[in-house]
Amino acid sequence: MLSNYSNPEIISLVEKKLDNLLSNDNNIAARDALLIEAMRYSTLDGGKRIRPLLTVAAGSLSSSSIDNLITIGSVIELIHCYSLIHDDLPAMDNDDLRRGRLTCHKKYNEAIAILAGDAIQTEAFRVISSDKLNISANTKLKIINLIATSAGHNGMVGGQALDLINTGETLSLVELQNMHSKKTGALIKAAILCGYLCGDNYHDDIFTKLNTVGDNLGLLFQIADDILDFTSDTLTLGKTAKKDFVYNKATYVNILGIEEAQNMAQKLYEQTLIILESLSNSKQLVDLTHFIYERSS
Amino acid sequence: MLSNYSNPEIISLVEKKLDNLLSNDNNIAARDALLIEAMRYSTLDGGKRIRPLLTVAAGSLSSSSIDNLITIGSVIELIHCYSLIHDDLPAMDNDDLRRGRLTCHKKYNEAIAILAGDAIQTEAFRVISSDKLNISANTKLKIINLIATSAGHNGMVGGQALDLINTGETLSLVELQNMHSKKTGALIKAAILCGYLCGDNYHDDIFTKLNTVGDNLGLLFQIADDILDFTSDTLTLGKTAKKDFVYNKATYVNILGIEEAQNMAQKLYEQTLIILESLSNSKQLVDLTHFIYERSS
Repeated sequence: MLSNYSNPEIISLVEKKLDNLLSNDNNIAARDALLIEAMRYSTLDGGKRIRPLLTVAAGSLSSSSIDNLITIGSVIELIHCYSLIHDDLPAMDNDDLRRGRLTCHKKYNEAIAILAGDAIQTEAFRVISSDKLNISANTKLKIINLIATSAGHNGMVGGQALDLINTGETLSLVELQNMHSKKTGALIKAAILCGYLCGDNYHDDIFTKLNTVGDNLGLLFQIADDILDFTSDTLTLGKTAKKDFVYNKATYVNILGIEEAQNMAQKLYEQTLIILESLSNSKQLVDLTHFIYERSS
Repeated sequence: MLSNYSNPEIISLVEKKLDNLLSNDNNIAARDALLIEAMRYSTLDGGKRIRPLLTVAAGSLSSSSIDNLITIGSVIELIHCYSLIHDDLPAMDNDDLRRGRLTCHKKYNEAIAILAGDAIQTEAFRVISSDKLNISANTKLKIINLIATSAGHNGMVGGQALDLINTGETLSLVELQNMHSKKTGALIKAAILCGYLCGDNYHDDIFTKLNTVGDNLGLLFQIADDILDFTSDTLTLGKTAKKDFVYNKATYVNILGIEEAQNMAQKLYEQTLIILESLSNSKQLVDLTHFIYERSS
């Protein structure tokens, strides 16, 4: 699905950076190459790259350098990609397709998929801590801490655990939001805040506003995902559609109904635009808010 | 197995620190608590704590503070613990027992075990990047980079992938050493080097010597493990014994025979002592060299 609100130039820079980060530059033997091949397979396979786009967009509010933003955005995408490999595993969501291709454990095997995910996560932290990255030491540590907090047991992984534990349970809207704010919201928010942290033109009050924007967009993204899962077919979606519905997973559509879910998405969209319009240099974030919203409409 | 060469006081401080790092201080609801419970189950279950002991021992060569050493050692132990959870999974080594207790996926389930491992890895990087840790920003970044390099696809995880790929293959001694230098050697070396990096009394030539000590002890540790697997029974070992032998996995014992493996261990032990005796304040590292060696003799 092409959108006027995405940013193909930035996506192309992110693809190049990811290719470069996971390059097989050691001339290693065939046996050693399988793991890095699996890491590349599951990372360089496209995707919307919404998180790096958000990082770059937020960076323009603090005059961050584009090179640093592409690196930090790509690192956050690594965290996202590792989580998808593990989420797709038979013991978790048991998905055969991801972005229209075989999932990592189907293409290789379960062991390699587990290890590829593990190593991709490690690589993210290796890249930010590298002395080749021209960001101040204190900012690097803030970014590492923010990503780790968002990705760990109080964030993304904790949310995924809750999602599994909650399957088949009847959830309230509050419980659903708690789960999603961890599972997808935390890293989306981190993508925005880390981009803003990269630049020198930093103000606490803008950081606070971006925090709310991050919360809103994380939630909007998930509602849009649930709506898409309900309204699309497998071919368009590139992954197995209506799975959540069939498996009676708690989703915004299941709890609220499709119309109310769409209303909620619209409200979040409008609230986010109001905040962004109060900020300078927020055009890219406004575009991405349209982009995330239009998936649900 | 009690040893005069271990250090119960340090181990007790590490246990307390790990308990504290993974404390459930959010008063979270029962559903949210399962993941942290699994993380605690697989981290606080004892073990020799050889990596934190090495970190603390190496830190005495650069006059590092004990508090910082305990934290950094515990963080490296987190990386080790996460790798054990994933290595034990059915798709990998398929072990039911670890340190005499059920493995994480047997106690909980596979999904929770995968996620607990993931979140423990993340937690390691969160802790080092925390502004509560009183180590200079540049040193923290060096430590993060060293741990990530040692734990990722060119280190521990890469070695585990090679181990799986190599199962059933005939390996040369060089190939076996390459695999183990990544799988277990890299993190053991990192444990030593990170401890040394923590202190202010830093010298390049000592770092270089400790690098060799790290290589030797990593190799010695693995040979000792293989010898133990061959000579012990399941009850003494606390995990399924003779698995490597039964499954015809490449080990030092399988390739060299038990006597030659023991000779190789003895040579590494002696070479390491010669280096350590040339360094001041190396008594703790000497003790740990005895400790690692005596497991194989």
